[in-house]
Amino acid sequence: MNAVAVYPGSFDPLTFGHVDIARRALKIFPKLVIGVSMNVKKFPLFDLEERVAMWQEVMEGEAGVEVDSYVGLLIDYVKSKRARAIIRGLRAVSDFEYEFQMAHMNYKLDSSVETFFMMTGQEHFYVSSQTVKEVASLGGSVDAWVPPPVVRRLKEKYGK
Amino acid sequence: MNAVAVYPGSFDPLTFGHVDIARRALKIFPKLVIGVSMNVKKFPLFDLEERVAMWQEVMEGEAGVEVDSYVGLLIDYVKSKRARAIIRGLRAVSDFEYEFQMAHMNYKLDSSVETFFMMTGQEHFYVSSQTVKEVASLGGSVDAWVPPPVVRRLKEKYGK
Amino acid sequence: MNAVAVYPGSFDPLTFGHVDIARRALKIFPKLVIGVSMNVKKFPLFDLEERVAMWQEVMEGEAGVEVDSYVGLLIDYVKSKRARAIIRGLRAVSDFEYEFQMAHMNYKLDSSVETFFMMTGQEHFYVSSQTVKEVASLGGSVDAWVPPPVVRRLKEKYGK
Amino acid sequence: MNAVAVYPGSFDPLTFGHVDIARRALKIFPKLVIGVSMNVKKFPLFDLEERVAMWQEVMEGEAGVEVDSYVGLLIDYVKSKRARAIIRGLRAVSDFEYEFQMAHMNYKLDSSVETFFMMTGQEHFYVSSQTVKEVASLGGSVDAWVPPPVVRRLKEKYGK
Amino acid sequence: MNAVAVYPGSFDPLTFGHVDIARRALKIFPKLVIGVSMNVKKFPLFDLEERVAMWQEVMEGEAGVEVDSYVGLLIDYVKSKRARAIIRGLRAVSDFEYEFQMAHMNYKLDSSVETFFMMTGQEHFYVSSQTVKEVASLGGSVDAWVPPPVVRRLKEKYGK
Amino acid sequence: MNAVAVYPGSFDPLTFGHVDIARRALKIFPKLVIGVSMNVKKFPLFDLEERVAMWQEVMEGEAGVEVDSYVGLLIDYVKSKRARAIIRGLRAVSDFEYEFQMAHMNYKLDSSVETFFMMTGQEHFYVSSQTVKEVASLGGSVDAWVPPPVVRRLKEKYGK
Repeated sequence: MNAVAVYPGSFDPLTFGHVDIARRALKIFPKLVIGVSMNVKKFPLFDLEERVAMWQEVMEGEAGVEVDSYVGLLIDYVKSKRARAIIRGLRAVSDFEYEFQMAHMNYKLDSSVETFFMMTGQEHFYVSSQTVKEVASLGGSVDAWVPPPVVRRLKEKYGK
Repeated sequence: MNAVAVYPGSFDPLTFGHVDIARRALKIFPKLVIGVSMNVKKFPLFDLEERVAMWQEVMEGEAGVEVDSYVGLLIDYVKSKRARAIIRGLRAVSDFEYEFQMAHMNYKLDSSVETFFMMTGQEHFYVSSQTVKEVASLGGSVDAWVPPPVVRRLKEKYGK
Repeated sequence: MNAVAVYPGSFDPLTFGHVDIARRALKIFPKLVIGVSMNVKKFPLFDLEERVAMWQEVMEGEAGVEVDSYVGLLIDYVKSKRARAIIRGLRAVSDFEYEFQMAHMNYKLDSSVETFFMMTGQEHFYVSSQTVKEVASLGGSVDAWVPPPVVRRLKEKYGK
Repeated sequence: MNAVAVYPGSFDPLTFGHVDIARRALKIFPKLVIGVSMNVKKFPLFDLEERVAMWQEVMEGEAGVEVDSYVGLLIDYVKSKRARAIIRGLRAVSDFEYEFQMAHMNYKLDSSVETFFMMTGQEHFYVSSQTVKEVASLGGSVDAWVPPPVVRRLKEKYGK
Repeated sequence: MNAVAVYPGSFDPLTFGHVDIARRALKIFPKLVIGVSMNVKKFPLFDLEERVAMWQEVMEGEAGVEVDSYVGLLIDYVKSKRARAIIRGLRAVSDFEYEFQMAHMNYKLDSSVETFFMMTGQEHFYVSSQTVKEVASLGGSVDAWVPPPVVRRLKEKYGK
Repeated sequence: MNAVAVYPGSFDPLTFGHVDIARRALKIFPKLVIGVSMNVKKFPLFDLEERVAMWQEVMEGEAGVEVDSYVGLLIDYVKSKRARAIIRGLRAVSDFEYEFQMAHMNYKLDSSVETFFMMTGQEHFYVSSQTVKEVASLGGSVDAWVPPPVVRRLKEKYGK
């Protein structure tokens, strides 16, 4: 069995919901590559190095995890990692459509790679990177939704 | 890595969409148990033995597949098979809600088991067991949506 | 151009929303066949003759309309009417999925026939045959949602 | 201000999600009438008396709560209670459509009454009366989703 | 009972749908604060003063209404107004998800405040501030969707 | 019967899904005007002339097709073409809402024009102009989703 899975995303920033997906995927796949995307479409709050560094702090010492970044097509990256499974968290109706489009595109580009969707944990269902940034930018506390290394960096960004 | 996944369902009857999910899951998981549920809620068209027999005919000779049936809680069945992954195909918005409820219930009953959702193939997106039965009951051809062993049995059921 | 369209449904009973769709379709298609389905799946409140009669009373005197009924596959019925367009009203998310499944099935059975979906009028968006029956069965007034011939028959059914 | 709100439902059985909605509504409305519906459409697992009794045990001693039952149109019941607000919990996409249809019908029947929807709490998002009954009927533990008076009665029903 | 509710939004510009929600909320809550948000995320067509002024003209003389604006976290604003209820109109599936995320965030930040969702009136279901601006910018009439003070200002903006 | 239909869109760029809708519409409507919109809202990848030219190359020689462009309100354009039907492809839940808003706006502006929605073909369900551009910009092959004149131009744009 191919034991490597890739968990890609822009993670701007990661939330407890992302961490939950990663940990649950690790219960089934012995090796998980967290692939932080260059994310050319949106202007991110955190640059690529920061987004990678936050994952490294949060997953430090966990076996089977590699935190990495990539540019270009996800499917090429997955193959370069000798992985055949892509992990994505699903949260709600609007996620669903975009996620299915991308999964289909990737399947057409290489049908030996499969995308597996995992249910976002109930305690993270209403949280997104976007809403976390909104609350933090207005001075609200986001300790309930993101781990300490992210809380700290959000405070630095927004000077609060 | 735990290499066994269970693909549960009522499969009344199986469609090409279900076969596609099973074959794609087998590319990642070396062993796949197709678990046909007793399905106490709805009155099925095919009894349990027929639903199992159709899968056996369709998957005959494929490595890594076990066709089986179960009663009781899915999570107990999954553990009895020493599996830790459940495979489910996702097709549309209304699937999504029920599937997430069941995945959550199973997670709460045993958090060592994970549900992985796979995107239904584009050529099967609009097909369901229910619509296949509707068309067949009215004398329409269903060869495009279900394999020959199912076509034959649908004809026997509806006398056409 | 093929000027005949079929507007199929169970119409148990018809509502102002259905009448609105029929009238708007008639602005584009010179001939519209309202095809009341035998509807074998659900146990209807009104039998087929009543459902046809209500449409006939409501559309009486309107040019280009034929009220009819059918059994069997819709696609066979459409061809027997020498029509190549099927009209369906779309109201909400749950409609969408079932409607697309049926449109796809019909397209696969005969690709010379096309299904056209029309937006349910805003004043009918929240009304369904089912909720009309619920309110009427409890003695509420349904005059705002169904035409007089339907109001009268609902009162007869529920003895109120 | 009109301080009375009605929280109607079939509650077959109530879940922690329902209790959460009731308690949160009570923070704003000083009087809440929990109206258990006769529910003529579905054959319920628990009869009306049992469904009322479970609410009474669970809400015992809480100020401002009246547990009651009703037959007929909800809007008539609401007016008989001299209330002008209806409370409904919203959980997911499929809830949304039916809930909006009913809210609209009630608004048309009496526009002095308003329906207020509340977000189901995140820890109850995936739980429904239906899935609780499914799990309980198969011998699974439902302690995480329903209060003790419901757990006890489910065990009696299913003899487990 | 706490009689103050806040109805927040960017209102760029307000539509008849917003006015309908405000008036219906006022039937239950004796005091309603319309809180126009600074709205830092999108570049608005109307500046904050204009958006406030349009509400003031439209609601002039109505008892129980205060038109106001705010910056920062909504939950802080609500508390500063000594309110405990937030009113939001719900229109469609895509509203639903974002609205639930924000309601959850606000609940976590202060669980003494509740968000109540109201069904957008059927005659306003298909109208949004965005589509109103699109039509107006192309020279179309928007009299059916926004009140005269908004029509006038849209004409000034687009010079038509 | 009015035989002219308009199929409007930004088509930035057209995909096989758009071509499929156009060809199926032509089976019912003898004349189809493909109206490429100036599209003032988004900054397009292809300018108006290129988007028109791609349609012309792809539909070259097909009877009944006119490729055209327009500025201003769609409804004015439709009337200038003496058409009374607008054709739109529907793909998924998020399409649905925006499409219904626009159809409603157009209906209010001129109720003699009707919008007909067609089901996107199953083999195009997961494809959008946006995802095609994403894949092409990263150097992936898009031959499966867009015709050769579009493939060629995408390569020119992205220098690959």
